[in-house]
Amino acid sequence: MDTFGREHCLDDCAVFPCGKTNIVASTDMVHEKTDFPPGMTDRQIGWMSIAVTLSDIAAMGAAPSLVMLAVGLDRGSRLEAILHGAAECCKAYGTILAGGDLDAHDELTIVSSGIGFADHPVRRSGSRPGDRLCITGIPGRSQAALAGYHRYDRYLYEPRPQVNEGIYLAETGVTSMMDNSDGLIISLYDMLEANPGCGYMVESSALPTLEDVSPDKGKEFSLYGGGDFNLIFTCSPEIDLGNTIDYHVIGSVIRDARVLVDGRAAEMRGYQHIWVEEE
Amino acid sequence: MDTFGREHCLDDCAVFPCGKTNIVASTDMVHEKTDFPPGMTDRQIGWMSIAVTLSDIAAMGAAPSLVMLAVGLDRGSRLEAILHGAAECCKAYGTILAGGDLDAHDELTIVSSGIGFADHPVRRSGSRPGDRLCITGIPGRSQAALAGYHRYDRYLYEPRPQVNEGIYLAETGVTSMMDNSDGLIISLYDMLEANPGCGYMVESSALPTLEDVSPDKGKEFSLYGGGDFNLIFTCSPEIDLGNTIDYHVIGSVIRDARVLVDGRAAEMRGYQHIWVEEE
Repeated sequence: MDTFGREHCLDDCAVFPCGKTNIVASTDMVHEKTDFPPGMTDRQIGWMSIAVTLSDIAAMGAAPSLVMLAVGLDRGSRLEAILHGAAECCKAYGTILAGGDLDAHDELTIVSSGIGFADHPVRRSGSRPGDRLCITGIPGRSQAALAGYHRYDRYLYEPRPQVNEGIYLAETGVTSMMDNSDGLIISLYDMLEANPGCGYMVESSALPTLEDVSPDKGKEFSLYGGGDFNLIFTCSPEIDLGNTIDYHVIGSVIRDARVLVDGRAAEMRGYQHIWVEEE
Repeated sequence: MDTFGREHCLDDCAVFPCGKTNIVASTDMVHEKTDFPPGMTDRQIGWMSIAVTLSDIAAMGAAPSLVMLAVGLDRGSRLEAILHGAAECCKAYGTILAGGDLDAHDELTIVSSGIGFADHPVRRSGSRPGDRLCITGIPGRSQAALAGYHRYDRYLYEPRPQVNEGIYLAETGVTSMMDNSDGLIISLYDMLEANPGCGYMVESSALPTLEDVSPDKGKEFSLYGGGDFNLIFTCSPEIDLGNTIDYHVIGSVIRDARVLVDGRAAEMRGYQHIWVEEE
């Protein structure tokens, strides 16, 4: 989910009160040319199209409830495998594939839209100077797979949205959260926008290492690579996160409104959607 | 919204209980080549992309709550006008444009996904033999506009989803309902599927006439034309629908599981999405 320049869209999901709880809602468009890595099967395309939206819902600390799929198909024969993968991903995360829309399209284009519920949704805003900066799992694995390190292929081709991790972190009382699907650093720049008066300091030595990848390349993949489905979050140093989930403390929230890696300003780059303006 | 062959998708929306009420959810994909008539402005494209989903929500008798938009843009310069039209349509129907996703695409492709709430959602199923068959508004006007009858252009270019009509009809206790965006007859064939043991008899003389259009052409447009946003519904002959909404009784629900026009089987045709299978 992206922003349309509206304040309440500085989050992975839109949030609306519903009785004593909140509905969170997100929509994501993926299409063949830019979103599906070479070699991805139609079943994996279906899986991934659901996973991107579940990751947005997870980033709010919400439990996903239902997902809908709009499929613009280049060839009708692809539908069965795509829906099979989509249904598998929904089932794996206890959510319902509630139907959708079907259309003919020159380029395979899939939009998944989902809603979830959260009593205490966690937003991108809420970081406090002095908070720990953390990430679930190991960032950079999808980019490593793209670069030919095949031991990491499954992270690229069948990404696992961190649904249970997100719910756990929301219950634990983390202060802010988002997913890193466009890259760790570029996501921290998004958090910068949502948190005036705060900045983020990453210690590259605290990043989990990528086995079989040289340290320099590993650092590049971890900081700037896209395609991961980790959750970036901040929390008070006093909070005990326990051993339930796999996470790393990779830095801290600072008063300086910049994104720093080892004390120096980080380049604002990652995986981005770009279109060509008319001349 | 289309079906994925699941029972609860035989409706314009998916329906899920939420406390004492129900969430209805729908997603619709529209794109340049097949869904936007020639001459449609970008503002109107934005309006229409919201209207299709609001019409699905209206067809359940639900009040729309929020809509999200995923836009695959061929040229970035189109975004402002599209979002302007989308926001106008949301505002006109008291709903929120909750954000969305933005991507580059060769062909302009927009997916709107919305949710609404209904204490008593009306489904496509529920027709009873002996019920009156009715339609809100005047079917065929969009097809007339497409055929060059410019007095009907606004129905084609800025369709009005029948949100208040849908809510009113649900409160009145109609037995089944759907929208007719792909055409009246093709929609009745959809209702046939959802109502085993029922059929639908249309009296063509009861169809509201299209001014300036010859009776033969008018009948063709009304029965088989697409692009309208009317609500087809059935209700007991005992129910008084009052004068609050504009509707016509156009036939009745019969025990014969067929769609008839003036006693003869109707052709199963309308506006359909078709893609080419591989050879």
